Amino acid sequence: MHDRIYFDNAATTALAPEVLEAMMPYLTEKFGNPSSVYSYGRESRNAIETARKQVAQALNAHAGEIFFTSGGTESNNTAITGAVRDLGCKRIISSPIEHNAVLNTIAYLQMRGEAQFFPVKLLSDGHIDLEHLEQLLAADAGKTLVTLMHANNEIGNLLDIETVSRMCRQYGAVFHSDMVQTVGHYPIDLQRTPVHFISGSAHKFHGPKGAGLLYINEKIHVEPFLHGGGQERKMRSGTENLYGIVGLAGALKLALDGYEKDSAYIRSLKKYMAEQLKNFIPGIEFNGDYSGRSLYTVLNVSLPKSEKSEMLLYNLDMNQICVSAGSACSSGAVRGSHVIRALNRDPDTVALRFSFCKHNTREEVDTVVEKLRELV
Amino acid sequence: MHDRIYFDNAATTALAPEVLEAMMPYLTEKFGNPSSVYSYGRESRNAIETARKQVAQALNAHAGEIFFTSGGTESNNTAITGAVRDLGCKRIISSPIEHNAVLNTIAYLQMRGEAQFFPVKLLSDGHIDLEHLEQLLAADAGKTLVTLMHANNEIGNLLDIETVSRMCRQYGAVFHSDMVQTVGHYPIDLQRTPVHFISGSAHKFHGPKGAGLLYINEKIHVEPFLHGGGQERKMRSGTENLYGIVGLAGALKLALDGYEKDSAYIRSLKKYMAEQLKNFIPGIEFNGDYSGRSLYTVLNVSLPKSEKSEMLLYNLDMNQICVSAGSACSSGAVRGSHVIRALNRDPDTVALRFSFCKHNTREEVDTVVEKLRELV
Repeated sequence: MHDRIYFDNAATTALAPEVLEAMMPYLTEKFGNPSSVYSYGRESRNAIETARKQVAQALNAHAGEIFFTSGGTESNNTAITGAVRDLGCKRIISSPIEHNAVLNTIAYLQMRGEAQFFPVKLLSDGHIDLEHLEQLLAADAGKTLVTLMHANNEIGNLLDIETVSRMCRQYGAVFHSDMVQTVGHYPIDLQRTPVHFISGSAHKFHGPKGAGLLYINEKIHVEPFLHGGGQERKMRSGTENLYGIVGLAGALKLALDGYEKDSAYIRSLKKYMAEQLKNFIPGIEFNGDYSGRSLYTVLNVSLPKSEKSEMLLYNLDMNQICVSAGSACSSGAVRGSHVIRALNRDPDTVALRFSFCKHNTREEVDTVVEKLRELV
Repeated sequence: MHDRIYFDNAATTALAPEVLEAMMPYLTEKFGNPSSVYSYGRESRNAIETARKQVAQALNAHAGEIFFTSGGTESNNTAITGAVRDLGCKRIISSPIEHNAVLNTIAYLQMRGEAQFFPVKLLSDGHIDLEHLEQLLAADAGKTLVTLMHANNEIGNLLDIETVSRMCRQYGAVFHSDMVQTVGHYPIDLQRTPVHFISGSAHKFHGPKGAGLLYINEKIHVEPFLHGGGQERKMRSGTENLYGIVGLAGALKLALDGYEKDSAYIRSLKKYMAEQLKNFIPGIEFNGDYSGRSLYTVLNVSLPKSEKSEMLLYNLDMNQICVSAGSACSSGAVRGSHVIRALNRDPDTVALRFSFCKHNTREEVDTVVEKLRELV
């Protein structure tokens, strides 16, 4: 075993060996093009349609509502662009702490004059201000898209999705939720909580990279984002990523089968780490509603800025400890996290995100806390 | 060994075992997010940048000109949309026998009023009428995109790309070439033959599905098609399909290393099959410039329509022989091939495409010809 401690599971997760095993036949002998009419192609088609049914069942949706994409980013781009261009949403209500796949798609559409962005306010704990959301919805009768992530990938806050879903229905708004951090981590029931679009990504729940899902409620119809051969029932062209799709469905099943046990265990790890940090790291603060409505997988903290804390990520890395400052997607950027900035934290702090999976242990938490004591 | 005869390599190819082997570390222990700043993430980043350099070298391009996508369809969508929206091309010259990833992107942009489509005429052998192309270029000084595939995926005709490249430079047009059937099958030298954009797809040359490449000449700049975290130097957002990218680069290297030997062998198979078909199948005709400027991998024929020939694909399938009527991408459609229609073939014929790879044998050709004799 390696000595590396991987506390960055919100960035990406290890592909589950069982999932890789399920993918292997399609990486070797079963390579037929799913669009080919001969039986060898139909075997590939059947694998995809079986995957679609599995995913639909896991989300309590219909198979016809599930589309496979190249990942969460493509799903978000497709949903938001489709809502604007094909459903007539000229107003977009979203929050400043969405993933950049949402914010930059909105910015692009706004730049082109296709839609206008209305940011919803945040409460001090990072939750969406639902009163402000309702004000924004009530302020204009024009067709509106609400796009709010189910869970924030940096601070872990969980949206009160039932209330937002109800509000959107009341005001006739289209509702998209980026569920990249919750699909495969929570049971999701799209019959109970109606949404128009959701986005998910396999590599966030021990599935393969390069495979995403897009749910489109059967009551609506949008044009494809990628044009071409008309795969995915004309909704997403391009030869299907056969192993990616098989892997996504297998990983989702595995994740939900283990949900009760794994989530309880990971939740206990998060709680334990929060306690240890409180006990041993002076001046530490917790970002978001960490002990309340929050992902059981994510713990985000701030440390007072100092020469030492500014070198923290580097020094943790030297000690084979993988954690991130913000999301992986923005970690290359020098500006730091737009999420932490939006929370109006004391600028003289350094944020760290720990994110867990079932493979992490209490011993790893102890090691990381011990290292942090040394390093700050 | 299975008894299946796979003559549909233009639809998709088997993943090379060496390529899968090169992908395996990234499907197992090396799963770090390439955008993470710690060393474990940088290992993934390094694998991607090494792949980028390999691909650049193979195409005689700069690493900064290579972008990884989810496939040829996304590459085509990105290039064409970028040329229209960001390079100001309001005119698009293309041919009626392009892949649907090109034709349907053009149709979408035309439907939205963003560009106008000018179809270039075809000669009777399926080649582009270069005189007509020049007339179209000369007819209007407005900024123009020329998008013509390097090789047609159904009939195999190869574009005179040097002449088209020269013409586009002369008239100041932007030139995109869908090279999905030629990348990995021919040495491509983008310094010698300047092009603004090319598209490629790994699964067409024994690489993985779900991995494509987009070359963008460094002299031009377009906006991304997928918006988000800013991966691929802000040109293509979304967590990178790490194994797909490693596989694409490995497959390209393998393909080009074996080019001389493999292409000579496959060319001889195609020639042999054409001869055998001529000798033994009465009434057979060959589509496109099959013995001239044509892919060595593709042979497209037409048979007189009869009760028997209309059941041909089905009966070949019953005999474990995989061939296609048109491209896999359109093979689900009842209308048949738009390429064959555009060639104005006798409508009372049935088209068949045979497409080969280095794993095919003369014995397989003999078996298929023998079956065809029985079946027609």
